[in-house]
Amino acid sequence: MNTLRITDIFKAKKRITPFINQTPIVESSFLNKLLGHRIVFKAECLQKVGAFKARGACNAIVSAIEQGKKPTHIITSSSGNHAQAVAWAASQFHIPVTIYMPKTVSKVKLAATQYYGAHTVLCADRLDTDRRVRSHADESNQVYWIPPYDLDDVICGQGTACLESVMTYPEIDAVAVPCGGGGLLSGSYIAAKGLNPAIELIGVEPFNASDAYQSIQAGKIVKLEQPPMTLADGAATLSVSERTFHYLKQVEHFVLATEIEMAYWTQWLQHLLKLQIEPTCAMTMVGVVSWLKRQTAKKTVCVIISGGNIDNDKRRLLHEVDYLAQLPSLNR
Amino acid sequence: MNTLRITDIFKAKKRITPFINQTPIVESSFLNKLLGHRIVFKAECLQKVGAFKARGACNAIVSAIEQGKKPTHIITSSSGNHAQAVAWAASQFHIPVTIYMPKTVSKVKLAATQYYGAHTVLCADRLDTDRRVRSHADESNQVYWIPPYDLDDVICGQGTACLESVMTYPEIDAVAVPCGGGGLLSGSYIAAKGLNPAIELIGVEPFNASDAYQSIQAGKIVKLEQPPMTLADGAATLSVSERTFHYLKQVEHFVLATEIEMAYWTQWLQHLLKLQIEPTCAMTMVGVVSWLKRQTAKKTVCVIISGGNIDNDKRRLLHEVDYLAQLPSLNR
Repeated sequence: MNTLRITDIFKAKKRITPFINQTPIVESSFLNKLLGHRIVFKAECLQKVGAFKARGACNAIVSAIEQGKKPTHIITSSSGNHAQAVAWAASQFHIPVTIYMPKTVSKVKLAATQYYGAHTVLCADRLDTDRRVRSHADESNQVYWIPPYDLDDVICGQGTACLESVMTYPEIDAVAVPCGGGGLLSGSYIAAKGLNPAIELIGVEPFNASDAYQSIQAGKIVKLEQPPMTLADGAATLSVSERTFHYLKQVEHFVLATEIEMAYWTQWLQHLLKLQIEPTCAMTMVGVVSWLKRQTAKKTVCVIISGGNIDNDKRRLLHEVDYLAQLPSLNR
Repeated sequence: MNTLRITDIFKAKKRITPFINQTPIVESSFLNKLLGHRIVFKAECLQKVGAFKARGACNAIVSAIEQGKKPTHIITSSSGNHAQAVAWAASQFHIPVTIYMPKTVSKVKLAATQYYGAHTVLCADRLDTDRRVRSHADESNQVYWIPPYDLDDVICGQGTACLESVMTYPEIDAVAVPCGGGGLLSGSYIAAKGLNPAIELIGVEPFNASDAYQSIQAGKIVKLEQPPMTLADGAATLSVSERTFHYLKQVEHFVLATEIEMAYWTQWLQHLLKLQIEPTCAMTMVGVVSWLKRQTAKKTVCVIISGGNIDNDKRRLLHEVDYLAQLPSLNR
């Protein structure tokens, strides 16, 4: 395992720029006034496929092509944003792609993945999905398996969102990122520290899926036994990998968010920014607020809005209670 | 009453450009493929205050200043986007502003209006609100009353969103706009026809608030007797005005949308565009689909996404049923 450097992120940035969206960085003067600090949001919900995942998938493919190893077939397993990202990225290079998905995948996500031209295989459950993609990879040297986070090229691609943010606003003091498998947080760590070692990283994970938090506390990877129940479906991974844990354990401020806190911040960010924002990224505000409480001077924090894909059943849960009656403050 | 011309929209555009956001025009390749046509969306939900209303309010004030009549005090009545728009626009010129609102206004909308520095007066109900703003205007020549749609400068300001869209995509064949009081639809009519008389206008109104539709059918203004119940709160006006009716009756395709159709298209547009989209503007897709059904060649339609402010109780209603299982098509 290599330790990645800022130059690896720059290379990824150069590779994927012709294909991805240059997403805007937005802010709310109302929120800034309430919190007494400046929060800027990198709107990756407006990225291709509605999530930062397009960056890592695209970088993995372009990097392989650069090395003279253009894949003849790509595979992966996912029921989330990674499936669409790999399907989209492969379609940019006219490479056939097979995506293993649990049969419980929503019709709309299935349609979107197929829209990009992917061959989809519905499996009995998540375990069966993992087993079949692994077996497909073992059967043939000809296929290129792009996992969601345990690959250097994926991590470097994800880090480009943070790179763009800090290059746009060099005054950023901290970067807040949700943690699932840790690909986005690792890439952001490498990018932010490489540009300015004084930038602090804020990692946030669901209280209900606290494997990374527990791993950091224990100094070794802790794996969840059951798929966790959380609104933050993008952070519902069973465990991080050795590759991402290397960076995660260096994150300065790593906190847990409750389901109510996620719903609160999803409502508020959607209201203030007029963007579709997944609970997975809205929960990072819990880390932002607790980090800001410790500061004595006015700070600028960058939040990576990781994606905007929300199932309808999650929406119903999100809006059961009206949190907009309670204004955001550092005293929450 | 003057008949407004494209030059009036150009003047408005020049006046407000230094103050407003240059909002993006977005599209979904997935939706385009499903419908077999191209739909581009002008994202006014990303405008100042989250709605196109910022344009009209700003133009009204700058136009007065140009004429050497800088207001010393501005007033209006609204519980919706117009309240925040006038408060925001007045704050840009350090002009004191008083907004009359029904006491049932949501805490978050009240806070936003006050955030822009407005003095807010809570009234018993909508009738009392109207009475008090009129009485305030009558008492003093010194105040400038900016109504939500019955003012030429407001209409011209609203028309600049369509102007920007057609100038960006001259190939646009039709422009779809929601109709409340008719300010946005009138301004869009003047802008679109002035740039290209072949462009057709598509107006959409809630079935539950069909005063403009009935007025067009009857050839004279029909007024609703009761405040209508509809998800499209931005189109829940009791009647249009003579000023806007002049343009509305020339709109080529004017249709009604049911509450279910609004919820359907709000879910779909939010899912596809990753933006907060009010039911008021999502309902325009009903007009787009019915207009496209009549076409024999591939068309480009522009939808003005009028705003992104959605109350939490409306959100719950919007997501009671999952419409994402049924893909959009022209056969709906």
